[in-house]
Parts: sequence; structure tokens; C-alpha cells
Amino acid sequence: MTAGANSKTNPGHFFEDFTVGRVFNHATPRTVSDGDIALYTALYGGRFVVQSSAAYPAQPVDDLLAFHIAFGKTVPDVSLNAVANLGYAEGIFGQPVYAGDTITTTSEVIGIKENSNGKTGVVYVRSVAVNQRGETIIDYKRWVMVNKRDAKSPAPDPVLPVLKDVVPVAELIVPAKTDLSAYDTTLAGSSDLWGAYQIGERIDHVDGSTVEEAEHMMATRLYQNTAKVHFNQFTQSQGRFGKRLVYGGHVISIARALSFNGLANAYRIAAINAGSHANPIFAGDTVFAWSEVLDKAECAGRPDVGALRIRTVATKDHPPADFPLKDDDGKYLPHVVLDLDYWVLMPR
Amino acid sequence: MTAGANSKTNPGHFFEDFTVGRVFNHATPRTVSDGDIALYTALYGGRFVVQSSAAYPAQPVDDLLAFHIAFGKTVPDVSLNAVANLGYAEGIFGQPVYAGDTITTTSEVIGIKENSNGKTGVVYVRSVAVNQRGETIIDYKRWVMVNKRDAKSPAPDPVLPVLKDVVPVAELIVPAKTDLSAYDTTLAGSSDLWGAYQIGERIDHVDGSTVEEAEHMMATRLYQNTAKVHFNQFTQSQGRFGKRLVYGGHVISIARALSFNGLANAYRIAAINAGSHANPIFAGDTVFAWSEVLDKAECAGRPDVGALRIRTVATKDHPPADFPLKDDDGKYLPHVVLDLDYWVLMPR
Amino acid sequence: MTAGANSKTNPGHFFEDFTVGRVFNHATPRTVSDGDIALYTALYGGRFVVQSSAAYPAQPVDDLLAFHIAFGKTVPDVSLNAVANLGYAEGIFGQPVYAGDTITTTSEVIGIKENSNGKTGVVYVRSVAVNQRGETIIDYKRWVMVNKRDAKSPAPDPVLPVLKDVVPVAELIVPAKTDLSAYDTTLAGSSDLWGAYQIGERIDHVDGSTVEEAEHMMATRLYQNTAKVHFNQFTQSQGRFGKRLVYGGHVISIARALSFNGLANAYRIAAINAGSHANPIFAGDTVFAWSEVLDKAECAGRPDVGALRIRTVATKDHPPADFPLKDDDGKYLPHVVLDLDYWVLMPR
Repeated sequence: MTAGANSKTNPGHFFEDFTVGRVFNHATPRTVSDGDIALYTALYGGRFVVQSSAAYPAQPVDDLLAFHIAFGKTVPDVSLNAVANLGYAEGIFGQPVYAGDTITTTSEVIGIKENSNGKTGVVYVRSVAVNQRGETIIDYKRWVMVNKRDAKSPAPDPVLPVLKDVVPVAELIVPAKTDLSAYDTTLAGSSDLWGAYQIGERIDHVDGSTVEEAEHMMATRLYQNTAKVHFNQFTQSQGRFGKRLVYGGHVISIARALSFNGLANAYRIAAINAGSHANPIFAGDTVFAWSEVLDKAECAGRPDVGALRIRTVATKDHPPADFPLKDDDGKYLPHVVLDLDYWVLMPR
Repeated sequence: MTAGANSKTNPGHFFEDFTVGRVFNHATPRTVSDGDIALYTALYGGRFVVQSSAAYPAQPVDDLLAFHIAFGKTVPDVSLNAVANLGYAEGIFGQPVYAGDTITTTSEVIGIKENSNGKTGVVYVRSVAVNQRGETIIDYKRWVMVNKRDAKSPAPDPVLPVLKDVVPVAELIVPAKTDLSAYDTTLAGSSDLWGAYQIGERIDHVDGSTVEEAEHMMATRLYQNTAKVHFNQFTQSQGRFGKRLVYGGHVISIARALSFNGLANAYRIAAINAGSHANPIFAGDTVFAWSEVLDKAECAGRPDVGALRIRTVATKDHPPADFPLKDDDGKYLPHVVLDLDYWVLMPR
Repeated sequence: MTAGANSKTNPGHFFEDFTVGRVFNHATPRTVSDGDIALYTALYGGRFVVQSSAAYPAQPVDDLLAFHIAFGKTVPDVSLNAVANLGYAEGIFGQPVYAGDTITTTSEVIGIKENSNGKTGVVYVRSVAVNQRGETIIDYKRWVMVNKRDAKSPAPDPVLPVLKDVVPVAELIVPAKTDLSAYDTTLAGSSDLWGAYQIGERIDHVDGSTVEEAEHMMATRLYQNTAKVHFNQFTQSQGRFGKRLVYGGHVISIARALSFNGLANAYRIAAINAGSHANPIFAGDTVFAWSEVLDKAECAGRPDVGALRIRTVATKDHPPADFPLKDDDGKYLPHVVLDLDYWVLMPR
């Protein structure tokens, strides 16, 4: 027999394939190594001391490296036919990831709702990534707009999950293995600890970083994220933007690295409360970032650590001394590419 | 004394320097590490589970990473003055390479034949790469067209090696250390095992990947391949194409990574039967791939594993739904950049 | 409180902040791994056998990788507001760095002199990088031109350190752990050992390597070097050159890798006597290099090793067969981008 069509290739799932309760055991488990840490440094230049130096016992990998790998696994099943990545909620970082750990991700459909146009629908999933001991390393929800296979398929009964606006402080996990007793603010690059930050305070992170095609593609492949729009200039040249789109997670990592200049002691991302990729970003754009302290809280049982709720906003080709965000109608300004609401941990 | 000419630099070898039986012990031994694995992932985005996850005992590095390093060693002695890389045959992959292994390569001249123009000749070499225990990791033949130092040198008696069209199945090596007893097709990304493939079946691998200068140069340097045409835009700008040529092996690795979408369980390349770099490829080109199952065979003593003989064809800027290969005169179509005939192993 | 200005970001130091004797304990300690070695290979393609193969016991990382990381640490404190990096002297490489070592750097101000324009001054620092055992891995001096915060600040009393033109041979450190007893010149790529080089000998390293934005930025971030001019096209597009400047150390590493072709057995950089980044370099430029043997010396107590004092000159878009350096007025020619005077060690 000669097979004509691609019976053996992955067509991805369409809106009709998602039913509440359906579970996906995503391919491919991925072992993280010192090599991933070095590449992540080369791609973003992170300087957070706990991740940079083995002088901190049990040196973890960057929380976002783990997040992107966990996220990448979900793409072939969840978002290969996605029109848009709409949002994140209730993302809780569990056990840190160390070199040698193997990340596996599963997702469960927790909500579906067809759009009124009849052509697309919104799918909500909860994705849980675990290490080789089955310990949760990240547990988060996201929702995406997915194409229907057939516009004539009947709309399913809508199921909308109840999602918290903010992860409660009591649910944040302070990794026990990360020993901060010898934390040295000089070597960490800033004397500003948790107590120095005030709710409402805004910080212009000043520096800018220009995106290159080779860099965003290497990053996205490192995460084994297969979303087609990032890699294929031939097809993209015929599309809406005429060029390859940069993976939104790449922008998150650039913004996090830029935020070192002002938040140097934010040694751990503990939770993602919400996130919007407000506008697309392309190679050649220069990313800047600013942050606002939305809230702060003590961590129960850990008098040495405090939590800061941070909004970090990334812009393109626009130094953010004016702290740009939305216009009078509540729409993101065209220079804004990311609005991320998250909890970090900081020594006290 | 002041030396004028470059008495201490490597001029490479010319056709006159190759005599049948001559052996080259190539510089430089190269220790492979977790860092190489991470870079290979960043460059190609491979997702074959056996290479991706330490959950498979004795996680090997990608077979082509080992091949490219072994190949790179031969360049300063064999192909620094090569006009063209003409073909491969009888390439057998032996012991898998693991992080920590050191690769050393030797080559022996097994054939020579001057071309009728009197300016160039064809040199056939057998190259054998071994690990630090002297175990063979790859043993292959290739032939290249090499410039003569002096067109007036007399032509040597031609010696043409007898090369098999296909590596016999009995010579394929199934690595004993790679334990497939817990192989999980869900985590591997496809339920199609050896039994699902039919001779004559063709697969469009669908996805495309655009080549960047920074990526192909980083790859080629990672393999310590010193062929000048890949790195030097100043000189290339004055040459035939006006730009840097992409190392053919980079295209092989891109095609192999694309082939995951349709051949996800092809966990090991066991042999290279033949290969043609049909047309040159440059940064900016988008690579696509399709494959055909040429043959299939059982592996003696290993009822858990089968072999598939695959032809993978890579194209540039041409989605290969029409399975392009050659024109009516048997010439490769201009969009075809690679025609690779090889054996893979797949769980049954 | 809402903070307007960037009270928590690092403004860098200005000329007024530097007083002789002031010590900076630089952030951030950095653990070097196999991943850094692989990236360094991908960025430069180095083939020096001692660094390439674990067959040499205690395989060290490339000396310049260690140097760049040590240097990168000094940038936020010393040269964030630097106008120019003026020179290096008395750079001595101590213990080699191995995967797993953590590099920490401190700097002491050893000289200051305001410029006659009243707007800038020259700051001399001695920087010492140590490993996690406190052993010195590099100890060097450099001087930079730094902006004054306020042109009206009074000029400090000038202090000019006495710097040697050349590190004395007796101060060079031959690493005891690097066992050369089994050194194999065939596997190292050249039969030319220390005895083969003559004072005054010049070598055209022949090969060229084109710089890419993605590569120099990944390199510079790998070293956690935060100098703004390398990363921010938006701001640079409004500046003097209109484009991002390449970190001078990236050029040093390219030149060192090119020098393998002619100096393959120079297995270790022992000292940096002097260095000038003669002209700026940008992505798209092709780097070439030539070297001259300035001096040679035996190493006391090590009859197996000799030292060569080398000048390596890098050019851009100019194959250096004519050994270009300076014009009749002693000014560097416009194609010259680097003039580096250093000691290497070579087996005898």
C-alpha cells in the first residue's frame, strides 16, 4: 500500500476533540541538564544568584526554564491548532527542578465554550508537570482559542471553570532545599530585600534586549515546543504578519532577566496569577520591561522569606520610563507585549 | 628568521597526497557532554524519546550528533580542498555515544580516480570513529572530489572500491544497553510501531524549519568541522553563490528532526546506505522533508525491534506534499536538497 | 509610597565613586559546567586538544571562557558608564577552571586620573577571580575611561599605577594537574612544538569567521556581561554607530580559535601582557587573524613546557597576508580590530 495522506503525522486536536475530563499524557519526557542551564544563560543572561551559583546548595534551574519545558510538552496535544493563547491562571511552582531531573506533563480539559462565530472555541486545561519521583514541579491552568474541525459540529454545553484571580499566599511553596542562611546581598547584586519594597512601587528596569531569529528559535526548540508559527518563514511569509512569531514564553524570560535590575533578590517565581501576550513580537524588536509591586505578604513558617506580588510589563521598541500599559478604553497600548502578574519570593 | 609563507598552517591535502592504504589519525579527540546534547536540542528540537529522557537507561546522544563530530574530524585531512562531497555508503552505527565518551576518528584511503579534466580527482575513504574504549561508534565510507595541487601531476592508477548499495540487515547493530521493555508509545508521541509501516508508504512530514546563519555556524563549529565555506562571508561573497554554504550534515539533522512527525518511534539510526546533497542550501531557506519506506526487516535475536529502510528527502522552500525527487532525466529537482537512504530501528 | 525614579536599579559608578583602595565584591558568583564548554565550542569552534578531550586528565575549560566570566562580573561595578576600555596589563592565569568550579571576582581601584576635559577620567583596577577554594584563577589589571557624574566635581589627586609591559616568565604558572606526558602531536593537529617557533616569525592564520548578532549576544550573556551597547538595537540605532557593538572579548576568542591554524599546540594562555581593541566590530564583519612570535622562554622546573610570547592581531574584512598593524603615524590601521600581547605555553 502507498499511503497518500499523512495518516502517521500528528494533525493536532480540534475543538471537537476536547471534552471536559479528557486527559492527555503528553510526549516527550525531557531530562534537564547542565547544558540546558548554560543555554538558558546564553539566551537570557540571567544573574539571579541562587540559579547562577552552586554555592547555594541544591542549585535549581531557572523556574521559567522548567515552565517552558513543561509548557512545550502540551503544544502537540493542546495548541497545535490554536488561534491564540488567551491566558494563564493558578500557576503554582512546586519542587524546584535540578540538573538530572526528568519532566513529564499531563493535561486535563477543565472547560470548553464554543465561540459565537461557530468556527472556534475556547478550551481550558489544567497542566501538571512532575519530576521523575512524581513530585509536582508546576501546576497551572491556561486557556486557548482552538479551531473547530467542522463549523457545522454542534456546540457543546459550555463549562467554565472557576479560576482565582490570584494564587493565595498560603498556597505558595517555599522550597525547603534552597538554604538562604548564607545569602549575601552583595554577591546577589542588590541590598534591597523584601522589606525594601512597597505596594504600588514601580520600577523601570532600564535595559533593553533585541530579539534575534536564531535566539528565539533555539530557545523554543530547547523547550521542544513545536508550534509552527515560530519556525517556518516560508509559510509565515504568506500569512498575516509576513514573519515568524516569537514564542510568548521567550518574552517572559527576557522580561524576567531584565527585571534583575531592580528585583535582583527575587530568587524564585512562586506562582503565576495571570498573563497576557498583549501584542505579537518579532525578531528585530527590542524588549524593555517595567514592574509594579501589587502586593506583599509574609510566608507562614518561613520568617526568612517574603512574597511579593509583581506585575511585570514588557514593551517593544519603547523604553518604559512612562510605565505604559493600557489606553483609556482598557486596551493594551501597541508597544505593550506582555502583562504578567506573578508572585516572587525574596529573602527578608 | 621571519617566516613569510604559512609553513605552520594546515594547507589540507591535495589529490596527489592520497594513496590507497594511507591512514590519517585525525585531530582532535572530542569529549561529548550534556552540553552538546542541550545544544543539539536547541538547534534541531529533536523529540525522540530515547534521546530525550534519562528514563531510558543509558540515554544515548543523538546518532547524528555522534556522526557529525566523527565527520568533522576528517575535514582537515580529507576535505579541506574538496570541491564536492559526492556520496556516502556502508555507514554502520555501532556502540551508541553517551555523555562523557571521547570520540576519535581515523580514515583510510580505499580508492582514487583522477577525473578526465586532469584538475581534480575522486578520493574514497573509510572513516572509523571509536570511543575511549576503542569500541566502534560509526564506520562509514564517503567519497569527495578533491583538487590536484598541480594539473601536470600524472594520473595514478585508478582504484575503485566495491561498495554495497545497502547495508545488509544482518550487519545492523541493535544496542544492547538501550532497554525498550518499558517503551511507552504515548510518551514517545506515536502509536505507530514497526508493524504499522508498509513498504512503499510515503509520509509528508508537514513541518518546515528556516535555516539561520548563526544556527548552522554554531552547529558546524560544535562538530569542530572546519570547512571554510560555512564561516567566511567575506570570501564567500566573492564566490559562486555569494553567500555561506550550509553544512550538508546540518540539513540531515533538520530532516531527521522533522521526520519525528510520522516516524516518532524510529529511536535509532542503524545505518546510512547512501546520501546525496542534491542542491546547496543557504540561510533563509526553509527546509521541509518527506520519507518513503523502502524496505523493512526483522532483527535477528531481537523480537522486540524491527528495522525500516527509509528514504528521507529534504526540500527547500517547497512543502513536499507532492513528494518531489527527480525530473524525467533523473536529475534532482531544484527544490530537493537531500536524498538520504538509511536504516532505522523501531520497537515492535 | 510610589517610587518614581529607579531607586532600586543599578546606575553604575561614575568617576567620582572611584577612590584608590576601594574594593568591589562583584555579583554574581557563577558555576561553570559542561554546558558552558559546549556553548563555547559552538561559538568559536576551538580545537585545542587539552580543552577538547577528557583524555587529558583534569580537562580544563578554555582559559578565555574563564577570563570572560571573570571580566563580566566586573562590568556592573566598574564599566557600566565606561566610555572606552583602554587597556589590559599584568594578567596572570592561575589555577585552570574545571566544570563544577564557581568563579567569584573582586576588584580594587589602583589608580585614577581625571582627563583634561573635566568630563571623564581614567580608572585603573586590579581584578582577581577565584574559584570556590579561594585559589586565584586570573589576576589582571585594566583601565577604562569613565564619565564623571558632574563635570564640576573637583579633580582628585592623580594616582598612576606602575604597570609592567610584560609579565615576567618567572611569574607564569604552569598548571601541575595538566599532565602532558602522553601529549600526541598528531591528535593535537600539528607537529610544531615550542622548539619549532622562532622569535620574529609571523603566521597568517588564513581562515575567516563572520560575526552574527545572535552569536555575539549569546556569548556575552553567557559571560553575564551586562554592558548595554551589545544588546539594545533600539538605543544603539540612535547612537554613533547605529548598531550594536560586539564585546571585545568575543573578538579575542575568535582570534584565539583562528590561531589554532598555526599555533595548535599552544595549549594554555598563561598571561596577557597588553591588549587593544583597536577598532570597533559589528555583526556581518568577517574576522581574520595573524600572529607574531615576540619572545620565547623556558619554564623553570618544567623541561616539558616552554613559553611563547605572541602578538595576535585580528582584522575585519581583510585577509591578513600582509600582516597589517599600524600606519606610519603609529595609528592602528582601520581594518585592525585587536592587538593582543600574551604568553602561551606549549609542550617541548
